Amino acid sequence: MRLGEVAARLGNRPVQGDADFTVTGVASLEDGGPDALGFVRSARHASALASSKIGAVIAPPEVEVGGRPAIRSPSPSLDFARAVALLAPPPHPAPGVHESARIAEDVVLGEGAAVGAGAVVGAGSAVGDRSVLHPNVTLYADVRVGADCVIHAGVVLREGSVLGDRVVIQPGAVIGGDGFGFEIDEQGHWEKVPQIGNVVVEDDVEIGAGTTVDRARLGSTRIGRGVKLDNLVQIGHGCQVGADSVIVAQSGIAGGTVLGERVIMMCQSGVAGATGPARIGDGTFIAARAGVYRDLEPGSRVWGFPALPERRWHRAVAVFAKLPELLRRVRALERQGAESPRRPPR
Amino acid sequence: MRLGEVAARLGNRPVQGDADFTVTGVASLEDGGPDALGFVRSARHASALASSKIGAVIAPPEVEVGGRPAIRSPSPSLDFARAVALLAPPPHPAPGVHESARIAEDVVLGEGAAVGAGAVVGAGSAVGDRSVLHPNVTLYADVRVGADCVIHAGVVLREGSVLGDRVVIQPGAVIGGDGFGFEIDEQGHWEKVPQIGNVVVEDDVEIGAGTTVDRARLGSTRIGRGVKLDNLVQIGHGCQVGADSVIVAQSGIAGGTVLGERVIMMCQSGVAGATGPARIGDGTFIAARAGVYRDLEPGSRVWGFPALPERRWHRAVAVFAKLPELLRRVRALERQGAESPRRPPR
Amino acid sequence: MRLGEVAARLGNRPVQGDADFTVTGVASLEDGGPDALGFVRSARHASALASSKIGAVIAPPEVEVGGRPAIRSPSPSLDFARAVALLAPPPHPAPGVHESARIAEDVVLGEGAAVGAGAVVGAGSAVGDRSVLHPNVTLYADVRVGADCVIHAGVVLREGSVLGDRVVIQPGAVIGGDGFGFEIDEQGHWEKVPQIGNVVVEDDVEIGAGTTVDRARLGSTRIGRGVKLDNLVQIGHGCQVGADSVIVAQSGIAGGTVLGERVIMMCQSGVAGATGPARIGDGTFIAARAGVYRDLEPGSRVWGFPALPERRWHRAVAVFAKLPELLRRVRALERQGAESPRRPPR
Repeated sequence: MRLGEVAARLGNRPVQGDADFTVTGVASLEDGGPDALGFVRSARHASALASSKIGAVIAPPEVEVGGRPAIRSPSPSLDFARAVALLAPPPHPAPGVHESARIAEDVVLGEGAAVGAGAVVGAGSAVGDRSVLHPNVTLYADVRVGADCVIHAGVVLREGSVLGDRVVIQPGAVIGGDGFGFEIDEQGHWEKVPQIGNVVVEDDVEIGAGTTVDRARLGSTRIGRGVKLDNLVQIGHGCQVGADSVIVAQSGIAGGTVLGERVIMMCQSGVAGATGPARIGDGTFIAARAGVYRDLEPGSRVWGFPALPERRWHRAVAVFAKLPELLRRVRALERQGAESPRRPPR
Repeated sequence: MRLGEVAARLGNRPVQGDADFTVTGVASLEDGGPDALGFVRSARHASALASSKIGAVIAPPEVEVGGRPAIRSPSPSLDFARAVALLAPPPHPAPGVHESARIAEDVVLGEGAAVGAGAVVGAGSAVGDRSVLHPNVTLYADVRVGADCVIHAGVVLREGSVLGDRVVIQPGAVIGGDGFGFEIDEQGHWEKVPQIGNVVVEDDVEIGAGTTVDRARLGSTRIGRGVKLDNLVQIGHGCQVGADSVIVAQSGIAGGTVLGERVIMMCQSGVAGATGPARIGDGTFIAARAGVYRDLEPGSRVWGFPALPERRWHRAVAVFAKLPELLRRVRALERQGAESPRRPPR
Repeated sequence: MRLGEVAARLGNRPVQGDADFTVTGVASLEDGGPDALGFVRSARHASALASSKIGAVIAPPEVEVGGRPAIRSPSPSLDFARAVALLAPPPHPAPGVHESARIAEDVVLGEGAAVGAGAVVGAGSAVGDRSVLHPNVTLYADVRVGADCVIHAGVVLREGSVLGDRVVIQPGAVIGGDGFGFEIDEQGHWEKVPQIGNVVVEDDVEIGAGTTVDRARLGSTRIGRGVKLDNLVQIGHGCQVGADSVIVAQSGIAGGTVLGERVIMMCQSGVAGATGPARIGDGTFIAARAGVYRDLEPGSRVWGFPALPERRWHRAVAVFAKLPELLRRVRALERQGAESPRRPPR
């Protein structure tokens, strides 16, 4: 594709240099050859660019690009992502149902939908236009998948799950498994509490490989519009995850947790209210490995376990590393006190 | 179903008000309409009840229910769980083997067992009466599944796995994967130690979505009667989990760990003995995100990493948050000491 | 098999006692009967041996074995692992493609390869000699699997994944899921960054059940020769894991992390650079539950979060447990100071 055409499709970005320069693919500055398009995030990456063989770049207006043809952009990273989608579009299976897939008679399949080998779709389910079920996916009964969704191999959507449009689910994720609910019976054993709710996943959500989203006991577990869940994340029954929130790998939220909008949970973090489900305010940032067990105000930034305000935690851990020295100083003060003249206790 | 019939089937609970009142389903107080049955855990939930549209409730004897017909129960939560099973029984696939399932010739299938589309059952395996294998389940050779089990889609039971009766396994769990055992060889590389043991899962166990239970190197990894494992839990090779223990999401126990009975491990916790497999006494409580690396006495309650007794940990973290202030106070004492008259060191 | 033959195949180890003694299997000292071969790691296990019914053992030269025939070995644990492979070889499916597997027309299958029921192999893929795809495995398009690999049930290898020889993947693992990359768009929503790289897994790697290895945004995520990943491990996009490294269960490394060779990450640990991908030097040891957010020099040994050098961390946590006492001691010093004669501040 001509660089000028790429620039046009990125919203008429200006091209510096030869707009007829043809790029055949995309690459990093490290790997890219003379036919590839790369990008420069900021002037900090200028040295990588200097030693790069790449043919053309998307770069901020002010950054020197060594004479290469360049698309100038105020947001090169976002524009590069879009250029990748143009120049290296993801493979899309041909529409239709593979002969080895097993689709219940009453299933409604949208136009252009594709169902892969070994996929199973239960009674009463529906799959929207252009959506893809990759091989060996299982949909139980009464599942709704919207339009333009991509459900990767091995994913399981249990009964009653509802997905909006443009939802992407990576391989091996499980939506709608039973919530973890048990009551002690008369003999002191755990008795299962039926989990008869479901999971609702709104538009534009992405769910990572191996991630598990449990169905609600009653009502719905809800993953809000635009939420991104990374791999191996656990969402307990009845949770509500607000729009545009992000939960990074191996994090989890306990049953009933309410996350606001635009919350960010970094990797290996967790929220589990100590005395009941926790409510996490909009825009909260929960650092990697932080553990939260109480409500948080909107805009909070917390670290550590138990989670503390960001600055307080950083200061506390700085002292933590020097605790042995602090102990020695206290001992020195005690020795010094013992040697000092003292008034007798009153 | 008539409220009186529900009450009778819950063990002849007393009905207050109209025993002929008909409930058509179950719901939470928030969502329930005039035909639904809900429950009130205690007087603390009275305000939710006041604003609820729900038709009837299960409630403790002393709690005011606003004139609704009510089943009076000393354990409303447990009775409600049982009412859900009566009024909204889980879907149960029709018995029989789907034509796309692949069952080895010598497999023994119990009466009323159901095997879903794409399921595979290896040679020498047996599935008990009324047990369900959902679609795309894989049983390797020589697997035993007891009666009344539910094995959800995508679950893998590797060779030699043994399940008791009434075992429920959520989608995507893996039972009997190789334990993680390697020895350094003569060239300094890791050489696999064959894992020829198996996994034994006793009666009434539930295993969560994406959870992994490794086979033993020799002998058996054992999940005791009534144990409940949540999602994304890791059980290392050769572990023994005592009856009625509960392990909440994203927790793990290292190879060889011995958990007693009625142990509770909250979410994202772990046990891994520092110098050999750890033994955790009966009735121990391990808090969320706690990390245990030594043996624990029965009835222990521990928090944090490294895990400390509950009270000690809570007190220590309270000071942790104020470490910068403590450091300032020590500095102030040091300044004060420097300014005080002192005897020369001897 | 005669003990003498076992000894010969372990590299001509000397036999003490009856070399014609026949062993029919392998077992632990606890479980083994008179026909079984066991092993003794060191003199510390002598008491277990004293009460054992086992027929023969592999033991270090100096350890007393109670008159049993014994293979003497300087590395009994490694030799026992090899004896297990001799006496109890793992089941190997018969070569050939199951009639219910779905293999694209142009797939190249090596000699002796086995493809199980319900497995799906996409166009352009190749499976090497003697490699096994267990039931319900999914290979997308253009996947390369080397020779002598074992891919267990339910595993998903997404498009373009490349595996070397002798790679073992436990059930339910996902290789090549999209990396977790999003950019904020003009409306403040997350926009997906296409992940068009792949995953390369070198020779002799083992990957655990439920583990997820993400494809790179551009280029390759690389798992080096001989690496062992345990269950439920997360490898972010673009990571490089050096040869012979080991990552134990439920650990994770963030996108772009570079692990050196022979790194050991114990269970539930994590690496995520704070300001960019972290580089972890060769031979580093990261303790269980440690969280690393900066680069580490080769040979580092770290514990805790944020990770500290081993000795410093152990000393600091020892004081942590006594923080309430330390606080009391500071208070006592303050009271004492208040009661002491003091010079007025200058």
